[in-house]
Parts: sequence; structure tokens; C-alpha cells
Amino acid sequence: MLVSLILNGTGVAMVNVETLSNETARSEGRGQEADYPTSSEVVRFGTDRPLQLDAGVTLAPFQIAYKTYGTLNTSRSNAVLVCHALTGDQHVASEHPVTGKGGWWETMVGPAKPIDTERYFVICPNVIGACMGTTGPSSTNPATGKPWGLDFPVITIRDMVRAQAMLLDHLGIESLFSVAGGSMGGMQVLQWAASYPHRVFSALPIACSTRHSAQNIAFHEVGRQAIMADPEWRGGRYLLEGTNPRRGLAVARMGAHITYLSDAALHRKFGRKFQDRSNPTFSFDADFEVESYLRHQGISFVERFDANSYLYLTRAMDYFDLAADYDGLVANAFRNSPTRFCVISFTSDWLFPTSESRAIVHALNAASARVSFAEIETDKGHDAFLLEEPELFAIVRGFLDGAGKARGLPGK
Amino acid sequence: MLVSLILNGTGVAMVNVETLSNETARSEGRGQEADYPTSSEVVRFGTDRPLQLDAGVTLAPFQIAYKTYGTLNTSRSNAVLVCHALTGDQHVASEHPVTGKGGWWETMVGPAKPIDTERYFVICPNVIGACMGTTGPSSTNPATGKPWGLDFPVITIRDMVRAQAMLLDHLGIESLFSVAGGSMGGMQVLQWAASYPHRVFSALPIACSTRHSAQNIAFHEVGRQAIMADPEWRGGRYLLEGTNPRRGLAVARMGAHITYLSDAALHRKFGRKFQDRSNPTFSFDADFEVESYLRHQGISFVERFDANSYLYLTRAMDYFDLAADYDGLVANAFRNSPTRFCVISFTSDWLFPTSESRAIVHALNAASARVSFAEIETDKGHDAFLLEEPELFAIVRGFLDGAGKARGLPGK
Repeated sequence: MLVSLILNGTGVAMVNVETLSNETARSEGRGQEADYPTSSEVVRFGTDRPLQLDAGVTLAPFQIAYKTYGTLNTSRSNAVLVCHALTGDQHVASEHPVTGKGGWWETMVGPAKPIDTERYFVICPNVIGACMGTTGPSSTNPATGKPWGLDFPVITIRDMVRAQAMLLDHLGIESLFSVAGGSMGGMQVLQWAASYPHRVFSALPIACSTRHSAQNIAFHEVGRQAIMADPEWRGGRYLLEGTNPRRGLAVARMGAHITYLSDAALHRKFGRKFQDRSNPTFSFDADFEVESYLRHQGISFVERFDANSYLYLTRAMDYFDLAADYDGLVANAFRNSPTRFCVISFTSDWLFPTSESRAIVHALNAASARVSFAEIETDKGHDAFLLEEPELFAIVRGFLDGAGKARGLPGK
Repeated sequence: MLVSLILNGTGVAMVNVETLSNETARSEGRGQEADYPTSSEVVRFGTDRPLQLDAGVTLAPFQIAYKTYGTLNTSRSNAVLVCHALTGDQHVASEHPVTGKGGWWETMVGPAKPIDTERYFVICPNVIGACMGTTGPSSTNPATGKPWGLDFPVITIRDMVRAQAMLLDHLGIESLFSVAGGSMGGMQVLQWAASYPHRVFSALPIACSTRHSAQNIAFHEVGRQAIMADPEWRGGRYLLEGTNPRRGLAVARMGAHITYLSDAALHRKFGRKFQDRSNPTFSFDADFEVESYLRHQGISFVERFDANSYLYLTRAMDYFDLAADYDGLVANAFRNSPTRFCVISFTSDWLFPTSESRAIVHALNAASARVSFAEIETDKGHDAFLLEEPELFAIVRGFLDGAGKARGLPGK
């Protein structure tokens, strides 16, 4: 089988040129970012610096793509690590190279924003298993010269954090001023504080939990089955075979998207309004605005995300269970923790409800850790952490200001 | 193209013998029930008795498959119509001809059960658009001799009820002692009371609402997209082309099934328990019990249900909006209603939450209708109406006893 490296403007992953034309590869906009991420920093770890994985194997060589914003101070004490969610990436506060849209947390991160890049040095790495330049299933497997596909090892939240710690070692940052993130990002925050308590001065776990619930595992499983049911998935070998499980991934995204919103928000935004008409069409067209919106969510997601990465990252979230690593007690993960925590939840978040955040707070209390907690009143559901929420911004700003004083960072 | 009627033990719908072998038809267990339902009564309405549809067209000829239990009394005053839910059928209290399992509401309907077949004459018809013998998209279109597929007109809850009224006319039943049903069945109950108030002595709408919410439309749309994304769906022509969108329908069912349960019930039943093992496999196998359970739900559903029927019935639920037919006010649907209502909801039902039932009750109050309301405490979610719920049974029994006295039915 003839295999060759096709390069276009941004570089593209190794593909089987017999089945995937150069034109197809370009028009589908896939793969380019996996090995050769544009507008990101990349650090490559050689075979001498393998990543130890919870699955019992090592990954080497591997690379981490990341973005930084702001300036590291001379005492290297103002670094903030931002951890992204399931479908996020390193482009937290600047233009996304595939979609051309702004960063996913521009409301939170930037000059004069709550995570103020005029005060803090912000680092946002793409997680292991993802598809925007950090090694994952769409990256080229150096052993074969072909995309990893399902030969990529199953990874965990702890593996993501372990890789991030190697990045920080590389950057010469011993101690983080803060680690912040929502959803899967919040899981990484908790894992950071558990695995490396003395490297985490303050922590902001937002809209997350210490373990994925049965209902959340169930929703993830439906998404995975939608992808795997797509004949274009080809047992995970779609990049090699020049196909794309676009429809399966879109269905997975549509289903997941409902869980990111609230019933009330959907009602407020869409209700039962018809799309560009006043009466039903008595057909299976997108009659209702909410159908049209969901279809758009599915289609636009497929343009920027890799189906296998979706499998791996949902699996990592399913496996997350902090207590399991600490004799069944979350509090054990935080004994004698020097970290200052600020736990945040949203009233209408039913994916990671406030009860999950309260459980984190109770564990931190039981461990005598320093913790503040805020439940923010909003109808925006889980996605609230990404949206315009003035109370969220005020809390994060205030918490970091206080932690900055304790850390001896100069005021603005 | 060679088309022929293949008959096996139970009879099978018209199929293209060029692409679907007799063996395939049998092994897939599809189609047999659509035209020639086993163990059901069938009434056929000819072209002289068309069904007027809300879509503005008529359906003729068409047939209704139904089951009855108990005996109609001489004054014809003890008939109870049971309306089934989205994936239900007429086999409410006796063996299902495809699965061999018991009736879907055997806890509620039968001798000495709350809907007591020793006192009441129970009629349960398969709804228009379904796949168990009443005319729907998998039935043979008499104009072509082939399965209707997407040529079948889009139907509404009101169309279902209109067809049921024709069945009752045929059976010589002018007035129903009661109409009962949960979920989509409850929508039919409300529509019955609105369309034919003088034919409904009492009504039991359970776990339902007067209009489908944006979130519920969204979940339905994901299910439909999962089916339509399956290449075996073939634009709805799968029966003709000898394929079966099995995987798409299974994914739709898995997603929907989560909405029928509650977070608490999933946690109680499955939590994060592993399936037949004590540690994760670090793979995409069904590691967790909840994954295995969901996969089973998807696979077993496909054996007994038609993918196009799933599209049509979800669409009918989406379109349901009782207020829209009554100048925007639900109360108008029940002005001067002689019907006695008993509205029932479940605390952990998030698909049709108690707030929806309260809205029904408020509308009935505003219309000065006779109504009692019960919210039942349970963690079983929406599915509670189908499960062992002693409080539900006691309420239904008590309500029917009282209504029976008012109707002059003899005590047991």
C-alpha cells in the first residue's frame, strides 16, 4: 500500500494516498492540526522522556501544543494554567486556526479580564488525546508512519495532568499561581491539586465533580456508539481510509449539546418557535428553531474536531474517579493540601449539578483544606462557565486578587 | 423491478424480493406485524371512510389493530381506552407476539389490577403511524403495493385520537368510562378530553404535558438524526431495499432511554460499577454496567420497532400543542368539560416534570373542570408510570372506583 506524507499550507497527517486525495484532505480540513499545529507553541518529548500512562504503558515520543498569554515574571510566580474541557483546545483567548473564531474563554482570559494577562502568565495546553497538536489518535504514530487511530492508548485525566507537569518542567515553572478550568478542565484542576499539591498555589475547579456519574457515562456512551455506528468510522481507521464519520460525530455532538444547556435556557431561547415559518410543515425538516440550532451545532463541530479524540476524551472523563485512587475517600486526595480552592457551580447545571460541587467542598473541609464555594444563579446550564456571567467573573477576579496578595504578586 | 408478496408464518409486508431474501425478512423479524398483526383484532376502514389528517390530507384505506380485555357490559358503560406511549403498542396486558414478553402495563391492567378487567372492558389500539398492525410507514401503501416509507403522511396526536374515535364508533361505544395513558399516551388522553368531551366520563393523563418542550423536541431530533444518519435508512426506503437502519435506531433508543430514567435511579442501579470485572480495561468495551445495560436496550428495541415509525411518532409528540388549537389557552380546551380528571406526575421525572402536570391542573381549574392531582415520590424517573409503584396503583384504583360509583357501575 502506497503511503506518503502530503503537505499543504499547514501540513497534514500521514494518509493513504490511494484512498484519500489531496483535495479531499484539504476540503475536509482534518488532520492538519494534529501533527503540525498552526499558531501554537509545540514541545516535543523524545523517547528518552516517555509519558507514563495509567493504562500501564508509556507514550514516547509525544508532543504538547500550547498557547501562552502575558509575561512570566522574574520570580516565575505568576503562571496560571488553564485546563480546557472535552471539546476545547489551547486557543483559550485568541483566534482558532480552523474556525477563525475567537478564543473559547475570551470572556475570562485576557488583558483586564478576570484571569488578567497583564498580571498573570497564562498557559493553556491541548490535552493528551485531543486533536489540535498534542499527541492523540489523529497524530502520526511514529512506529508506523500512519495515524494512531485506536492503537493510541486509552488515557485518563491523570495522564493529561502528568503530561502538563512535564510541559511545566520544560518551561521551568515549578509552582503555578493558579490552575483553572470548567467541566473536564475542572477535573484536571482537581487532579493537579491531588497529584502535585505543592505546585498549585490556588485552584479554581468550576462546574465539575470528583467522579463521572452513571448518567454522564450513559450520555457519553450514546455519543461513542453514534460515532462507531457510522460506517465511515471504519474501526477508527477513517483517516487512513480517506473517510470521515461526520454524521456519527454530529449526532454525538447534538446529543451532548442538549446536556450543556438547561431546559429553561432552551425554553427561553427557542420555546416552540418555528424556523422561518408560522406553521408546521408536516415533514421531517427542521421545523422548530431548536432543531435547526442543534443541527448547526453538529455540523460546525465536525469541521474542527476528530471523532477518535471524542472517543478518547469522553472515556477519560468516564474513568475519572478521584476517590478510587485514594482509598475510596476524596478527602484523602487533599490531606495537608497547601492549595487555596475556590469551587464554583451553577444552579441550572444538570450535567455537573451543585451537589457534585458540594461533595468537593465537603471533602476539602474534611481534609482541612482552604476552600470557598459559590453557587451561581443562572438558567444557562453547564455552559454557563463559558458564557457572559458577571457573578462568575467577579468571583474569579476576587479570588485571584486575594490569592495574588498572599502570593506576594504586585497589585495592578 | 420484481416485487412480490412473501408470506411466512405470520405474513410479511410487501418487499422487493430482488434485495431482501425470505430468510433475511424472517431473521430480522420486521414487517410481519405491519399488515398482518398476530394475536390482535383488526378493523379495516375502506376508501369510503377516510381518516382526515391535520396535515390536510386523508388516509384511506387504513386499519387499526387493537386488543381488548374483559367484557363490555350491556349498557356499554364500562369501556376503558388505554393509550400507549411512543414505543408501546396494543399488547398492554398480554404476550407480545414479537418479543414473547408480557404486556407493557400488566402491573396496571388485568384481573383485580387497578384497571380491573373483571369490572371494565379495556380497549388498547395501536396508534396511527406505529408498526404493530395499525397503518403506518411500514404498512403496505395500497397505491403502490410497497411499504409507505416517507410517503406516509406526517400525523399528529389529534389524528391518532380521531382514528381511535372511528374504532369506538365501529365497536358501538358512544361513551368511554375512562381514558388512561402515560407519556405520549397521556397526550392522547388530554386530546380525547378536548376533542370529545362528551365521550369521556373520566380521564387519567399520567406523566405528560399539553405541549412538547424545546428540550424534548431537541432529544427527539437527535434520535431522528441518528436514524437518518444510518446509510441503511436509505431515505426511508429500507424495507424496499432490504436493509435495516438498526444501528441508528439503537443509538436513538439509547439516548431516549436515559431520559426515561433519573440520575438517582441510574446511580442506585449502576453507579460506577464495572461489568464482570473489578478494574477498567482501558478500552472502548462496555466497562461500566450502565454501558452494557444501555447497549442491551438499544439492541433489543431494534428487534421489535420500525425506524420510520420512530420518526413519525416522535414528530407527532413534537407537534403536540393543545393551546395552539384553542386560541393559545389550554383552559379553552376544557371549558364546560363534564370529564373527571386525575392528573399524575412523578417527582424524579425530568422529561415531563411535575411542573407540566401542574400546568394541566391549573388549566383545568381555570376551566372549572373536576380535577384531582397527585405527585408521586419516586426516584424512577419518567418510566415510573410503567413500573411497580404502589402509590400510583392505589390512586388509579381509587379514582376509578369513585368514577365508577358516579357512573352507576356495580361494585365488585
